[in-house]
Amino acid sequence: MFEPETAPRGRIVDGTHVFPVRVYYEDTDAIGIVYYANYLKWAERARTEMLRVLGADHSRVLRETGVAFAVRRCAVEYDVPARLDDDLEVLSRIADIGGASIGFEQVVRRAPGADKDGARPLVRLSLTVFCLNRAGRPVRMPPSVRAVLATVDDTRRQG
Amino acid sequence: MFEPETAPRGRIVDGTHVFPVRVYYEDTDAIGIVYYANYLKWAERARTEMLRVLGADHSRVLRETGVAFAVRRCAVEYDVPARLDDDLEVLSRIADIGGASIGFEQVVRRAPGADKDGARPLVRLSLTVFCLNRAGRPVRMPPSVRAVLATVDDTRRQG
Amino acid sequence: MFEPETAPRGRIVDGTHVFPVRVYYEDTDAIGIVYYANYLKWAERARTEMLRVLGADHSRVLRETGVAFAVRRCAVEYDVPARLDDDLEVLSRIADIGGASIGFEQVVRRAPGADKDGARPLVRLSLTVFCLNRAGRPVRMPPSVRAVLATVDDTRRQG
Amino acid sequence: MFEPETAPRGRIVDGTHVFPVRVYYEDTDAIGIVYYANYLKWAERARTEMLRVLGADHSRVLRETGVAFAVRRCAVEYDVPARLDDDLEVLSRIADIGGASIGFEQVVRRAPGADKDGARPLVRLSLTVFCLNRAGRPVRMPPSVRAVLATVDDTRRQG
Repeated sequence: MFEPETAPRGRIVDGTHVFPVRVYYEDTDAIGIVYYANYLKWAERARTEMLRVLGADHSRVLRETGVAFAVRRCAVEYDVPARLDDDLEVLSRIADIGGASIGFEQVVRRAPGADKDGARPLVRLSLTVFCLNRAGRPVRMPPSVRAVLATVDDTRRQG
Repeated sequence: MFEPETAPRGRIVDGTHVFPVRVYYEDTDAIGIVYYANYLKWAERARTEMLRVLGADHSRVLRETGVAFAVRRCAVEYDVPARLDDDLEVLSRIADIGGASIGFEQVVRRAPGADKDGARPLVRLSLTVFCLNRAGRPVRMPPSVRAVLATVDDTRRQG
Repeated sequence: MFEPETAPRGRIVDGTHVFPVRVYYEDTDAIGIVYYANYLKWAERARTEMLRVLGADHSRVLRETGVAFAVRRCAVEYDVPARLDDDLEVLSRIADIGGASIGFEQVVRRAPGADKDGARPLVRLSLTVFCLNRAGRPVRMPPSVRAVLATVDDTRRQG
Repeated sequence: MFEPETAPRGRIVDGTHVFPVRVYYEDTDAIGIVYYANYLKWAERARTEMLRVLGADHSRVLRETGVAFAVRRCAVEYDVPARLDDDLEVLSRIADIGGASIGFEQVVRRAPGADKDGARPLVRLSLTVFCLNRAGRPVRMPPSVRAVLATVDDTRRQG
């Protein structure tokens, strides 16, 4: 339905999008660890690129369907702090597709090779994103968006 | 035990800390609403000032006890988006004091007078913060910190 | 011409707006000092509140005249780093009013009483802000905005 | 002298480091354009990766020489605003190497192929970065850092 307008970042493997993140000074705080709100920025970058891989760029969806996505709720577990210069990746998968919402499960972990502790998650996020129209009101998901999401719907693939 | 080193912001009324927040361009995004990670910044400012009112400035606690606070988990419900120039307040209360952790309940809402919808929450946060030593390892809460927190411990006050 | 829609922060004394800023974890980095881009956020908050004191809220100006402000250039001198929990203030004055632009001079310094080095500036900013219409094109400054700015135009006051 | 500890991002061509940047919601503001302070974040990411390509990772330099870099001054020209989903690149080159400082010239522009206006710069930055020891005092640049920087010193190459 959609084609990406610019080259997407990251890749989708078995329904999971893998997105690289580097820790820069802007991400850290005076304790020497990544500031807790900044993981949410990385998670949003990863979701954005996952949708772009699928052809559902935010700009294009907004332009073609008048719909934007907004986070309705999120839950975050901070297991191990990331630090300056860390080479990380965000894993994202779609756990649920509702009539007007998408459920994402995301994990931040060290990039393979960089991780002395194997694939241990640093931070785990569980989010519900829903569809808004230009007036900021919840609306049903456009069929064109639903169609591309279904291709990576974890629940359906496992059914 | 502690005295604030600089004048704290906000005030504590009946165990609830009230902290003013203004929405600036830096907080908003291209949809015209506050970016979802930025509420976590405001919530952290409010917790910091609540602790400062109690005399437990981050800098002083770190210097005197070697302990810093870090968020272990948070859950956020985004009910109504805030927008540019909004005049808001963050309400914070301590819901739980553990051996090495503090539970906070926080609400972002429009400042009284600014809110056409009364005291309706925009965003609700539930967080667990725990104590770290300088090496980044979890440690028990210093008695001096526990003592000042107990003065606003909601559970105890209601007991 | 304009009235502030919500209570402005800070105050104007002799043409200079004084705006309080506290340093939070979000502002600092792993070196333990304030990240260099974040002073620009504080400076923008201060300019916004200075305009609000004058009655020229961003939201209102945009709604009533269709004009927004954007930074065209800035020069920043970082003299002394600010640190966690510092109690600061941003001093802002209008140095120049052009047909479509405003020149600001801003200083970040420790709040009086907090500063062991007197009024020594930590960071100095010099900015040119210009007027954009909704299409993002430069336009002349609305007369209503020019009128309120002239009341604190440093050049004119000294003339 | 140094080897990168993790794979650097971007590449150096003829002394100029080219670093890709995508515009996400976190970068934009309610006007629909990138918030002016955020270009400084991208520029710092690019400088960090340029140094990493050269083998001078921040973490390693700090660990091996006790020296960190901090921005002493910057001047920024905002020519054309970037917008959500834009595919950009930051070009960085070292314009000057002093006894305790480095001068950088940086340009943010659209990625080749994405740019309808060719290589027109969106934002131009000119910065001086200097060396600090762990106590936050200016110190001379470690010889090992100077040696790797000299390999891309524009002035020397052109001399």
